[in-house]
Amino acid sequence: MNFYKSSILKPYLTTHTLAPENQETPIHHIKRWVTPRKYVYRRNHFSYPTLTPNFFLLSVEGKVKHPLIFNFNTLLSMPSTTAAMVLECSGNKRSYFDPKVYGEQWKDGAISQGIWKGVPLRHLLTLAGLESSVKEVVFEGHDYGPRTDLEGIFSYARSLPLDKALHPDTLIAYELNGKPIPFKHGYPLRLIVPQWYGMASVKWLKRITVIDHEFRGPFQAIDYVYYPHKEDNSEKRPVTNIHVNSTIQQPMPYQLLDTGTHKISGIAYSGEGKIQEVKLSFDGGKTWDSANLKEPYNSPYSWTFWDYTWKVNEKGEYIIMSRAKDSKGNIQPLKAEWNRRGYGYNAIYAIKVKVE
Amino acid sequence: MNFYKSSILKPYLTTHTLAPENQETPIHHIKRWVTPRKYVYRRNHFSYPTLTPNFFLLSVEGKVKHPLIFNFNTLLSMPSTTAAMVLECSGNKRSYFDPKVYGEQWKDGAISQGIWKGVPLRHLLTLAGLESSVKEVVFEGHDYGPRTDLEGIFSYARSLPLDKALHPDTLIAYELNGKPIPFKHGYPLRLIVPQWYGMASVKWLKRITVIDHEFRGPFQAIDYVYYPHKEDNSEKRPVTNIHVNSTIQQPMPYQLLDTGTHKISGIAYSGEGKIQEVKLSFDGGKTWDSANLKEPYNSPYSWTFWDYTWKVNEKGEYIIMSRAKDSKGNIQPLKAEWNRRGYGYNAIYAIKVKVE
Repeated sequence: MNFYKSSILKPYLTTHTLAPENQETPIHHIKRWVTPRKYVYRRNHFSYPTLTPNFFLLSVEGKVKHPLIFNFNTLLSMPSTTAAMVLECSGNKRSYFDPKVYGEQWKDGAISQGIWKGVPLRHLLTLAGLESSVKEVVFEGHDYGPRTDLEGIFSYARSLPLDKALHPDTLIAYELNGKPIPFKHGYPLRLIVPQWYGMASVKWLKRITVIDHEFRGPFQAIDYVYYPHKEDNSEKRPVTNIHVNSTIQQPMPYQLLDTGTHKISGIAYSGEGKIQEVKLSFDGGKTWDSANLKEPYNSPYSWTFWDYTWKVNEKGEYIIMSRAKDSKGNIQPLKAEWNRRGYGYNAIYAIKVKVE
Repeated sequence: MNFYKSSILKPYLTTHTLAPENQETPIHHIKRWVTPRKYVYRRNHFSYPTLTPNFFLLSVEGKVKHPLIFNFNTLLSMPSTTAAMVLECSGNKRSYFDPKVYGEQWKDGAISQGIWKGVPLRHLLTLAGLESSVKEVVFEGHDYGPRTDLEGIFSYARSLPLDKALHPDTLIAYELNGKPIPFKHGYPLRLIVPQWYGMASVKWLKRITVIDHEFRGPFQAIDYVYYPHKEDNSEKRPVTNIHVNSTIQQPMPYQLLDTGTHKISGIAYSGEGKIQEVKLSFDGGKTWDSANLKEPYNSPYSWTFWDYTWKVNEKGEYIIMSRAKDSKGNIQPLKAEWNRRGYGYNAIYAIKVKVE
């Protein structure tokens, strides 16, 4: 008569705002290498656009020899690439900055992993033929709306430098996890940029414009910029690659545990490098012990799950720290580099637990 | 062709743990006076019990003249009371204590409001006939399991002093919002104790035992006790009434706003008294301005929604504070009384926003 199966014990997205919709992945409870579609975090600047037939057309224009319009079905028939990729919002973990910063107070879950399939962008650019003066490629989505800091209505638009646009795995994606991309994640066509934070992966892709100068739209030149100082804009630089990072999924911060053996588990990821090691410390960072990296960990853009068996016989309070290092030598710092808009947080992850 | 209606923009419960299930109400997005059943926070000590026919029987035993067993259908046919009541976990807002405390890191959503219907407990106690030596009434649920701090298996059990047990609105409830109580919230029978924090409202009620002494079960004598000191148990006292409290639902903490007019909205509630006023401060508590209390606000155990129209023309950072006062003169303090297990947090609510 137990009609409540364990399958009913499911986590939910964590709601931040609904207008626009910003909800994070329940990352502490996601144990699958590929994030199920319904658990992919939702991050929007505006309310959802209204789907029209135009969404199935994609133009490539600007400094090209042959301006082209591709339709959705044509794209489906072109050579495709499929890859597992982490998508992380650059504001992920923003709530941990000290001093606190304004904006969505993401905890650990503005991150997901998906299997994306699509046409490499460079194939379309080759068909259009780049002019020699080209510097950047601009991507405009169908979503638009007001900003708090400027008068007017703006489309969401971002640019990539030419080399990133020509990266073999920068995709015009049409599938997520083997199905059409959910509308909330950019259906029918979404730009997917490997290694970079999610702001680069423009949803509901409308237009690709090749330009010979630097793009200065507000989502490029105001947002998604690291401002290291509270009051002035000196030393600013653009947000690009995902920083090396790790998150302890279990146990939870401030959890009460009994004495005995506990599994500590988590994720680790980095933009450019492969995760090479994850180490844990129980003594405030004096000594570090290696966690077990779990298969599959060879996908170039994927996250890595890890775990560690912790035997604890002594009651008391413990700080557990995790620190990831990638194949490029990037390693999580003890303190994240503070910046005014709160991007790229990647300090060593630390939780406190009490054994009683 | 817009097949994504705004109704799809729905909030979710915020997941803390799944074993046992602890998920909070998305309180910042709940605008309805009665919380829809699916949004009622879930707070468990153990995994869910297995429903058996015994769940439909309720015994009243101990220091009574006529030990009785009531079955579910008999209870349905008895005189009933229906009331709107706030149910708040005593650990709600625990995450705000400074210094931090261990346990579930609830934010603002371990609170919901429901319309509960059931038989007044005192009716059953009258039928059973109390002996003159009676001091407390013990309520045992069907849920059980291990604890982190003690060896063995424990049922969830709590007691009430006799006067609270005889309160006319202390109910053996069988309906929530006009339907049978959802299993996760105590189906078929749940004790509902008005004015007290939720730990008193024992789910899956199994047995009522009248006793002539003080009940010392671990959920009475160890948990749900205010321990004001970090290291010793002096000055401890039991958790009982819900403290006067308020929460700003909108805007969100650290939200970016434009200049102009914004609605500030929230809830206020108290255990014993009616909410008499909610005041807001924009200058760190030097001056306070009254919020508008919204109807219906006369139910003795319900929360009150309030709002305030804020015109802001000057850019900058603002602290918005809300402070509720009840008809007994209870008022939210500037700092909540710290206690080792983190119960009863009710400091003046304060958020920072930036107008840009």
